[in-house]
Amino acid sequence: MEETFVPFRGIKNDLKGRLLCYKQDWTGGLSAGIRILAPTTYIFFASAIPVISFGEQLERNTALCGIIHSLVGGQPLLILGVAEPTVLMYTFMFNFAKDRKDLGHKLFLAWTGWVCVWTALLLFILAILGACSIINRFTRVAGELFGLLIAMLFMQQAVRGIVEEFGIPHRENPEQTALQASWRFGNGMFALVLSFGLLLTALKSRKARSWRYGTGWLRGFVADYGVPLMVLLWTAVSYIPVNDVPRGIPRRLFSPNPWSPGAYSNWTVIKEMVNVPPLYIVGAFIPATMIAVLYYFDHSVASQLAQQKEFNLKKPPSYHYDLLLLGFLVILCGLIGIPPSNGVIPQSPMHTKSLATLKHQLLHNKLVSTARKSISKNSSLSQLYQSMQEAYNEMQTPLVYQLPSTLGLKELKESTVQLASSTGNIDAPVDETIFDVAKEIDELLPVEVKEQRFSNLLQALMVGGCVAAMPLLKKIPTSVLWGYFAFMAIESLPGNQFWERILLLFTAPGRRYKVLEDSHATFVEIVPFKTIATFTLFQTVYLLVCFGITWIPIAGVLFPLLIMLLVPVRQYLLPKFFKGAHLQDLDAAEYEEAPAIAYNMTFEDQERQATATNSDGLEILDEIMTRSRGEIRRTQSPKVSSTTPSSVGDIKPSYSPGVLQNAYSPRISQLRGKTEKGLELKQTPSPGPSTLGQSSRASSSI
Amino acid sequence: MEETFVPFRGIKNDLKGRLLCYKQDWTGGLSAGIRILAPTTYIFFASAIPVISFGEQLERNTALCGIIHSLVGGQPLLILGVAEPTVLMYTFMFNFAKDRKDLGHKLFLAWTGWVCVWTALLLFILAILGACSIINRFTRVAGELFGLLIAMLFMQQAVRGIVEEFGIPHRENPEQTALQASWRFGNGMFALVLSFGLLLTALKSRKARSWRYGTGWLRGFVADYGVPLMVLLWTAVSYIPVNDVPRGIPRRLFSPNPWSPGAYSNWTVIKEMVNVPPLYIVGAFIPATMIAVLYYFDHSVASQLAQQKEFNLKKPPSYHYDLLLLGFLVILCGLIGIPPSNGVIPQSPMHTKSLATLKHQLLHNKLVSTARKSISKNSSLSQLYQSMQEAYNEMQTPLVYQLPSTLGLKELKESTVQLASSTGNIDAPVDETIFDVAKEIDELLPVEVKEQRFSNLLQALMVGGCVAAMPLLKKIPTSVLWGYFAFMAIESLPGNQFWERILLLFTAPGRRYKVLEDSHATFVEIVPFKTIATFTLFQTVYLLVCFGITWIPIAGVLFPLLIMLLVPVRQYLLPKFFKGAHLQDLDAAEYEEAPAIAYNMTFEDQERQATATNSDGLEILDEIMTRSRGEIRRTQSPKVSSTTPSSVGDIKPSYSPGVLQNAYSPRISQLRGKTEKGLELKQTPSPGPSTLGQSSRASSSI
Repeated sequence: MEETFVPFRGIKNDLKGRLLCYKQDWTGGLSAGIRILAPTTYIFFASAIPVISFGEQLERNTALCGIIHSLVGGQPLLILGVAEPTVLMYTFMFNFAKDRKDLGHKLFLAWTGWVCVWTALLLFILAILGACSIINRFTRVAGELFGLLIAMLFMQQAVRGIVEEFGIPHRENPEQTALQASWRFGNGMFALVLSFGLLLTALKSRKARSWRYGTGWLRGFVADYGVPLMVLLWTAVSYIPVNDVPRGIPRRLFSPNPWSPGAYSNWTVIKEMVNVPPLYIVGAFIPATMIAVLYYFDHSVASQLAQQKEFNLKKPPSYHYDLLLLGFLVILCGLIGIPPSNGVIPQSPMHTKSLATLKHQLLHNKLVSTARKSISKNSSLSQLYQSMQEAYNEMQTPLVYQLPSTLGLKELKESTVQLASSTGNIDAPVDETIFDVAKEIDELLPVEVKEQRFSNLLQALMVGGCVAAMPLLKKIPTSVLWGYFAFMAIESLPGNQFWERILLLFTAPGRRYKVLEDSHATFVEIVPFKTIATFTLFQTVYLLVCFGITWIPIAGVLFPLLIMLLVPVRQYLLPKFFKGAHLQDLDAAEYEEAPAIAYNMTFEDQERQATATNSDGLEILDEIMTRSRGEIRRTQSPKVSSTTPSSVGDIKPSYSPGVLQNAYSPRISQLRGKTEKGLELKQTPSPGPSTLGQSSRASSSI
Repeated sequence: MEETFVPFRGIKNDLKGRLLCYKQDWTGGLSAGIRILAPTTYIFFASAIPVISFGEQLERNTALCGIIHSLVGGQPLLILGVAEPTVLMYTFMFNFAKDRKDLGHKLFLAWTGWVCVWTALLLFILAILGACSIINRFTRVAGELFGLLIAMLFMQQAVRGIVEEFGIPHRENPEQTALQASWRFGNGMFALVLSFGLLLTALKSRKARSWRYGTGWLRGFVADYGVPLMVLLWTAVSYIPVNDVPRGIPRRLFSPNPWSPGAYSNWTVIKEMVNVPPLYIVGAFIPATMIAVLYYFDHSVASQLAQQKEFNLKKPPSYHYDLLLLGFLVILCGLIGIPPSNGVIPQSPMHTKSLATLKHQLLHNKLVSTARKSISKNSSLSQLYQSMQEAYNEMQTPLVYQLPSTLGLKELKESTVQLASSTGNIDAPVDETIFDVAKEIDELLPVEVKEQRFSNLLQALMVGGCVAAMPLLKKIPTSVLWGYFAFMAIESLPGNQFWERILLLFTAPGRRYKVLEDSHATFVEIVPFKTIATFTLFQTVYLLVCFGITWIPIAGVLFPLLIMLLVPVRQYLLPKFFKGAHLQDLDAAEYEEAPAIAYNMTFEDQERQATATNSDGLEILDEIMTRSRGEIRRTQSPKVSSTTPSSVGDIKPSYSPGVLQNAYSPRISQLRGKTEKGLELKQTPSPGPSTLGQSSRASSSI
């Protein structure tokens, strides 16, 4: 993304990019068919449940914001919801307001209305001036620290919720049978059973695909719908004790938050806003700054995490325009008297991940049927691969502005090729003993995401549907919600490199290689352990300070500043303590990277297709077999000067035509599977969509 | 074992065999040092906890029987305890007696005294007449079905225990605060938390060795002592709720069984025995027969499962003598008025398994230090292997009656040899990059067991110590015990092929190969799935019938007959429905196997050692590398005639000198690691303790 601060340019660029694929956003969603329901329900639960505990009104509001964003928002992968930090900010503000004579409970929501107006104003200014163009300065360090902070807040909510199950809830009549000491003890213990039951079974169910038992269909179903199923199951379990157990055990009622009851009478807030004393209207600017900083950061980082390089997205981002839209949503929410929605973590990255699973399934099914058809026609291995490659290309989203995909099937496994060649004739028909269709195709497929608006709209509609289904939802025990909060916290951890580094500190030295196996974390090999430890320790302390600040009664409102501060700390302070190369491995910052090599893909691609079809299979396979298969390492020395970040232009992946991005970034090349050695790569700068085609070209040109 | 029914011959043989290694049983135990505590505490918990719940007296009695058996018993791997079936039998008898006017509560124990006298008499006759020599007719089917029945009884106890935590316990004052409906609910829920907490953490802790986190020492400690640690932990947790929670929550008192309170006044039973009406004295013969059948079966099968072939035991079994000793113990217990102890499942096989782990650690440490020393002397790979082989031989138990061990280190991994040879010169010094000492040695070591009496004696003494520690033990919540019962049930499942076959039925067809990977179950490959399913279904139905019978009020006393019946069913009925070869794979019966080839190991062994030291390393390694490494398959067709079982003599493994057992049994050869192909095996009938030595011999003779 261009780092330009010309007013409106960022918004204009965003709109231009997204409008081109707007139609495909809908048709692509429809083409997925019924399968779209899997990511939809998964995300619906993730965005509905945290809101459920705050009551009906908040849910209606979340649904409204979600629907608006999915229809007219820029990046449809971004999920909107009331984030934990927002809840924190509102709590700080409520604690401040309730003790002021001329504000108090009565005018609290009217006052927050003013806060929202100021916040929206600041967001407009930020969006128009192109503040999001510095998004590449929000490196992994900042995003992951924030992600872990959110996970801690979720976990805190879970723990606090369970502890409260042992106590007397606010605004309840303590004379009730269910609130006697004895029943409270039973209720608390039951809450432990239900919440841990949900947490453990939900975590297990997400791994159902790798279970040994049950049919593939059942395993897939459990993996896709395990979380709602488990919520159902444990809600059913909560109804088992009937004898002598009084109503109200386990607790199911949703007590609204102390600051939200007024909101139930809609649109009264806007009328009351004129009654707020002028001093407080002006003073509202202070929390508004904090919230604006928070939203600017949270919205952008949630969007960024939903668009990580690893996902190989093809459609452009839309940071500026989305921030502008958020401004409007904030005003809307402020006038209704409800905390605004913004892009949420971990739901947004969870959304992209689940859409990657969906896309994988779709590609898998298509390729399996192609492969089976091809095998039944007695194709040789190279013909088989060719037909799969064609089927894969067919499945690519035809985008108006985009050249053919830079991705392609990965190479065939060496062992498969060896097996095929060991039958003597390489052109002999393959069968399923050589090419285990279902298994091998999984390994050939690159990571891709079903980018569309449908799942986002549907989940928002479902959240809205919850308002109607509230009587039903009220049957869910609160303890199941606490279990779900814990589940969300844990579910957000894998893939967070900061978390993985924390674990690494506790890993026995002899077993550190396992981290490498599991998560392809090259830094383990490259960076000295002591440096990793120091870096992680610094990050952990920073995280704990951020978390600690949220506990400070009213000054806690400043915590967004601390998170925002991490951006300059990373850019200017950290390079003084860590070597540039190490910092690049631990926390690759785009602004520190070397410029990418411009490269005309179209020509190469045409040539590839022409050659591949006529190529001699044996040569190709020979090439493949003799090629060493080490992972790509950084062959161009990064030699980053920490003080002078090169203001490189457009190096965002995949959607920018004619530019081959980050060919030397280890993370990208890993995801593209095993490619040639760095040395070879220097000679042929393309990391190659189809290595098969490339190799044949190379060999035929000799 | 000889199938002879000459009176006293079995007992004499047993005594002869065991006396020869009696001294080593003690010295071997001492030599293990402090490490012996790991299996000891593990088994102590497994044998103490099920008894704890029955009160002090039973514990004292278990300790007494355990001490006697460990001192003068035949097979010290066998663990004695009050088995679940015994508890069942006593419950049946109590239910019968309590309603008889002339017997009732008062004379119940005196009557069981007579039952014990009769039982002992029957056991004496069985032992003297050599009934245990048909132990090889107790095939896997019978043993594993019984094992699973015990697991079901344990699980039933766990479930019942937890359910009862919600109810009012017998003999307690229902007016207590802790027994109000509300507190009972809380108590039950707390029990769920504690029991599942114990179960899940104990299961996790047993796998600590493969954890990624923590130092090796910590992981080993948790794996060895995880269960007692977890009992401690959850007992501590049970003390967390203090506010308002009345005493008695969670429940910690051990209410003695209804039939045992009389026993507290010791030695009164023997006086009362004369008061039992003569008719009941004679009638006592009926339950006595059942108990005798049960003990004959249970004691022998527990002993058999503790001495499975997989363990490669070196010391002889002692079925007859142990049964005779059991007779004496039964009388002793009968006169005290306490249910007798006998050999228990799953504790006995658990004992052997934990001693195998111990032996592995001891061998591992010795070999690692040898290897490190050898590497520091710049040895080549073959010299290294040779020195490890020598160290291994040194560690072998020098038994008076036994020829050198038939076991040896397994072959070096092909990849290691390849790596070594790739350095150019095969005689070049190895370093740890080629030979990853700790890891490779683990793969070289065969399964062996630290056979000694120390762990058995110690655990019995510790059970006895529990009587003194009773005030402390009473702090353990009953719910933790229920969790432990469930843990015992689950812990007994792995390795039970019947259980693994049940799981196989639920495994997706595409993933059945995983069963093969995990448990080396060749039958999955050889026997058609339909046959496996039918066989398993038959076994499951049989198991359920056995379990169902234990639920029938008084006739349930007949359940041992049903289990015993499985022996003739397996021998005469099953061969009519299943192919002999399949039956052999699913349930290898020694009496159906071909006679083994007698083979003089001593000579070979000497020659091996002589050649290996002078051999040319390159040739050896070449041989190793070119040899195909498929697993052995049955190359001699078993051609089992199902109607005429050949009554082959002594084919029990490992302890019978001069006889090489089961060279063609796939299960054994698998455990010996990858040996030569079947074809080669035919030419050289030795499955080869050290392939390295053998190969060198083969090559030098060319």
